[in-house]
Amino acid sequence: MNSTYFTRRTIRKYAQRDIDSDLLERLLTAGTRASTTGNMQIYSIIVTRDQEMKKRLAPAHFNQPMVTEAPVMLTFCADFNRFNLWCRQREAEPGYDNFMSFMTAAIDSLLAAQTICNAAEEEGLGICYLGTATYNADRIIEVLELPLGVVPVATVTLGWPAQVPEQPDRLPLEAVVHYEKYHDFTPDLIDSLYREKEARTDSQQFIAANGKETLAQVFTDVRYKKADNEYFSGKFLEVIRRQGFTF
Amino acid sequence: MNSTYFTRRTIRKYAQRDIDSDLLERLLTAGTRASTTGNMQIYSIIVTRDQEMKKRLAPAHFNQPMVTEAPVMLTFCADFNRFNLWCRQREAEPGYDNFMSFMTAAIDSLLAAQTICNAAEEEGLGICYLGTATYNADRIIEVLELPLGVVPVATVTLGWPAQVPEQPDRLPLEAVVHYEKYHDFTPDLIDSLYREKEARTDSQQFIAANGKETLAQVFTDVRYKKADNEYFSGKFLEVIRRQGFTF
Repeated sequence: MNSTYFTRRTIRKYAQRDIDSDLLERLLTAGTRASTTGNMQIYSIIVTRDQEMKKRLAPAHFNQPMVTEAPVMLTFCADFNRFNLWCRQREAEPGYDNFMSFMTAAIDSLLAAQTICNAAEEEGLGICYLGTATYNADRIIEVLELPLGVVPVATVTLGWPAQVPEQPDRLPLEAVVHYEKYHDFTPDLIDSLYREKEARTDSQQFIAANGKETLAQVFTDVRYKKADNEYFSGKFLEVIRRQGFTF
Repeated sequence: MNSTYFTRRTIRKYAQRDIDSDLLERLLTAGTRASTTGNMQIYSIIVTRDQEMKKRLAPAHFNQPMVTEAPVMLTFCADFNRFNLWCRQREAEPGYDNFMSFMTAAIDSLLAAQTICNAAEEEGLGICYLGTATYNADRIIEVLELPLGVVPVATVTLGWPAQVPEQPDRLPLEAVVHYEKYHDFTPDLIDSLYREKEARTDSQQFIAANGKETLAQVFTDVRYKKADNEYFSGKFLEVIRRQGFTF
C-alpha cells in the first residue's frame, strides 16, 4: 500500500493554490465508489469553494482559520431526501424516518468522506476534519440550505499543504486492537500504554499551559468537557429529529 | 491516486488463503494513522480469525456465508472504555456518557475502518461491510465480551477475492454532489438521475423476482422495510444507552 497511510498528518495551513476542478471531480468520484448500504448512496457532499460561503460557514466551525484559508471545504451529510423523493415518485412508501436509517446514512457518508481523504492525501493534498460539523449542524443546515432528511456529519478542509507539521503520536497498536475477544485493561496496562504519550515534551507543555496536573485533565477539564458534550448532545439530537429522523 | 478507488467492488467470496499476520498488522497500523478526534483514538478493532468465534458471531450477521468463509473479520467499535479508565487513573473525571461522545467515537471508528479497507484493496484484498453490526450489536457485545463504553458500529470481512463480480452501478455524480448550496431535486431531475439504474437488466430482474412494480418498492417493501428499520432502531438505541451513553 502507498506510504501516505503511514506518513500522513492533519494539515491546517494551506498554500495559496487552488484545487483543479478535474482533480476534485476525480476525488469525488472515488468517494462515490466507496461501500454504500444496499447501493442506496444515502449521503450527499456539499462543496464549498466560494469565499462568501466560507465566511458564512466559519462561525459554525468556531471561526477556525482553515475554513476561510482552505481552497475547498467538503460537508458530508447523511441524506435520505433524494432517496425518499425517488421512492414517492415510484409508488413506494419510504420508512426511513427513524434512528437506524440516520445511523446507516451517517455511516455511508463517513465511508465516502474517508475514501476522499485517503485519495486526496495520496495526491499530495492535506486534509483536516472539523468536529464542529456535528456540534453546530443547525447553523450549517441553515447556510447550506439542507432540506428535511439531510444532516451534516463531517466537514473536511482540503488544500495543498503550506507546512508539514510533526507527525502526532499514536498509542501502541495493543491499545486499540483486540484479538478474538475484548481484553479489558488493568491499571498497569493503562500506565504502560499511555507512558510514552504522557512523557512527550508537547504533552508536558500542554499540561503546564492549561494549569493542570495530568494530561487526562486537559481533556476532561479543558478540551472535551462534560458540560459541552451534554450541550452539543442535546443540540445534535434536536437537529436529527427536526430533520425527520424521529426516536 | 491508485486505480483501486475506481475499479473496486465489494467481495463476498474469498479464496481459501489466509492473510499474513504482518500484512494484517500493517493494515491495522494504517488504520490507526487515520484522523481521530483530539488524538483520543476512541475506538477499538476486534480481530476475528478463530473459526469457532466466526461461528458464534455468524447468527448476529444473519448467517451470511462471508462470516465463516473470510479469513479475517474486523469489528470496529466506538470505545470510550480505555479513555475513561485512563482519565480515572489520572485524577480526571470523564464526561463522555452522552450521545455526542458516542457519535464522535463512532466517527473515529468509521474513519479507521475505511482507511483499512482502502489500504487492503490497494493490496489486492477484497472487503465487505456487514450492516448487521448495528442491527445486532447486542449479540456481538455478548460474543466479543465488550465492556461498558464500547459499541460496535461496523463489521468488515476481509480476504483474497475468489471471484471478481461485475462492478455495481452508481448514480451520476450530480445525484450526490452539490456546489455551494443544496440544490433540491425536481421530479424531472429524479427521473433523469435514476433512469439508467432503473433500466439495467439486473434491476428489472430484481423487480420481477420480488413481484414488485418498481425498483424503489423492492427497497421499501422487501430489503429495508419500515417495520425492520423501526425494530432495529429501538434495539440499537437500547444498546447505546445500556453501554453507558445516555440520552
